Amino acid sequence: MGKMPNLGSKPLFIGVDGGGTKCRASVYSADNQVLGTGVGGPANPFHGEAQAKVSIVQSVDMALANAGLPSSVIGDLIAGVGLAGVNLPSLFEAMNTWHHPFKKMYLTTDLHIACLGAHTRDEGAVMIAGTGSCGYSFVNGKATIVGAHGFPFGDKCSGAWIGLEAVKAVLLASDELGPQTCLNDLIGAHLQAKGVMIVDKMGAAKSSDYAQLARFVLEAAEQKDEVAIKIMREGADYMSAVAEKLWATGPSRMSLIGGLSGPLTSWLKPSVAASLSNPISQPEFGAVYFARQQHVLANT
Amino acid sequence: MGKMPNLGSKPLFIGVDGGGTKCRASVYSADNQVLGTGVGGPANPFHGEAQAKVSIVQSVDMALANAGLPSSVIGDLIAGVGLAGVNLPSLFEAMNTWHHPFKKMYLTTDLHIACLGAHTRDEGAVMIAGTGSCGYSFVNGKATIVGAHGFPFGDKCSGAWIGLEAVKAVLLASDELGPQTCLNDLIGAHLQAKGVMIVDKMGAAKSSDYAQLARFVLEAAEQKDEVAIKIMREGADYMSAVAEKLWATGPSRMSLIGGLSGPLTSWLKPSVAASLSNPISQPEFGAVYFARQQHVLANT
Repeated sequence: MGKMPNLGSKPLFIGVDGGGTKCRASVYSADNQVLGTGVGGPANPFHGEAQAKVSIVQSVDMALANAGLPSSVIGDLIAGVGLAGVNLPSLFEAMNTWHHPFKKMYLTTDLHIACLGAHTRDEGAVMIAGTGSCGYSFVNGKATIVGAHGFPFGDKCSGAWIGLEAVKAVLLASDELGPQTCLNDLIGAHLQAKGVMIVDKMGAAKSSDYAQLARFVLEAAEQKDEVAIKIMREGADYMSAVAEKLWATGPSRMSLIGGLSGPLTSWLKPSVAASLSNPISQPEFGAVYFARQQHVLANT
Repeated sequence: MGKMPNLGSKPLFIGVDGGGTKCRASVYSADNQVLGTGVGGPANPFHGEAQAKVSIVQSVDMALANAGLPSSVIGDLIAGVGLAGVNLPSLFEAMNTWHHPFKKMYLTTDLHIACLGAHTRDEGAVMIAGTGSCGYSFVNGKATIVGAHGFPFGDKCSGAWIGLEAVKAVLLASDELGPQTCLNDLIGAHLQAKGVMIVDKMGAAKSSDYAQLARFVLEAAEQKDEVAIKIMREGADYMSAVAEKLWATGPSRMSLIGGLSGPLTSWLKPSVAASLSNPISQPEFGAVYFARQQHVLANT
């Protein structure tokens, strides 16, 4: 064979998890061992298809390098790719017709691979709270998506939503048309701008830029800042309602994942927080799980 | 002279009012008669400096044509230009260093020219509710700006804000995580999309696209739709608070202007609504008023 040294004739898999801020990829051996992992840039095609494709290839290249494999191996990989945004048919179509560099590519949503990874089986529910937010369940072959509408109109309780609410509150406070808040100083120091000058800094901000402000809201809420508490309360109440909708579809397990999952849990309704299970594996594993499933279907 | 037929040696003025959706220009004779008017595209440099410049020149060209003047006259015009967005120093600088096609250009904010136009003197207050929203007063040589922060973080009660709140409400309703609303049907019919598919249509939406949805919220609120009423109530309460802040600066008159000024008035606090006066003239007149003022200063 020659092209894939030391790996014989068994196929190699790559699992890709593409979100609004970054793209993670892991190379898996035929027997499910992680050989290497890489992280690339934003990969939500809603915010740019070209950027998403670049970030996917970048993360895969890094995963191959991390595994000690030559980058030419990319053409031998069977890829499972889960992307934010492709729940919209137009974006699914755009990404699925990509002249990708893999041997085969099986595309699905980031929600689907997160769910497969969290439960390592084809059934369960997940909520994601990272740059974006959403809920997903897969029960008896039926997928239910709650939210996943994107920024700025959806994605309540996501990092981007929390950050945008924080900027709104700081600007209202700077006009003395809203309550004073320590977010003024926290976000001002981060952006090196005061009051209305924050507008200048956030003029071309993307959802990932807003999401970077979420940690200041969490920090301010811990300091009992009323404005920050109100934002977290509204966001978390929404996520609790999402969880209840997902439980109503009858999954056996539910996990909360994403960059905000840790700090967010304590803001959820106690009954919801208690109903959550830790994810068993990563979304990249779920992506490979999906690719194996589809690959078997495609070859039988 | 030859270049300016029938106009002798008296200078010609052009007043330009550039906002987020369109740019209006009027040619004025030396004795303040409107000779012609034109309307161009969006001219808020916050959403693109190049577009703003194109829209300004386009509106001026049309105003000259409407006045029966050759387009070459642009080089003889003394321009007063009021633009949304240039309350940010970086954007003021960017637009003020433009190699503009006029004989002279005097740049200020859209707020300032609106105020000069509304009161035809250098004192008073205005609130603008169009694609964007804000408040402005000029009293004893001191300008006060309230709001004017831009979309999506500021501009509460603007058309864009109302439209975004409507899309959020429709998406929450489509997930059954918010109250049902007739905005679903009204906005769905306008966008030719249902529920979550609205996301597909609004993916790359600009503030002016959101502002186009505001009339459906007004329509739904008239039909006693609770969701629409809540949006209008929150927006109008903010504008009433803006008005009270502006009255506190001591202006002799205040006007509400912009595309939403008519329907919005009935939503304001009765005391605020009763305190408003009709604008005396257009913002373009205010722009020329400003240019004359500055031109005298510059030439004395």
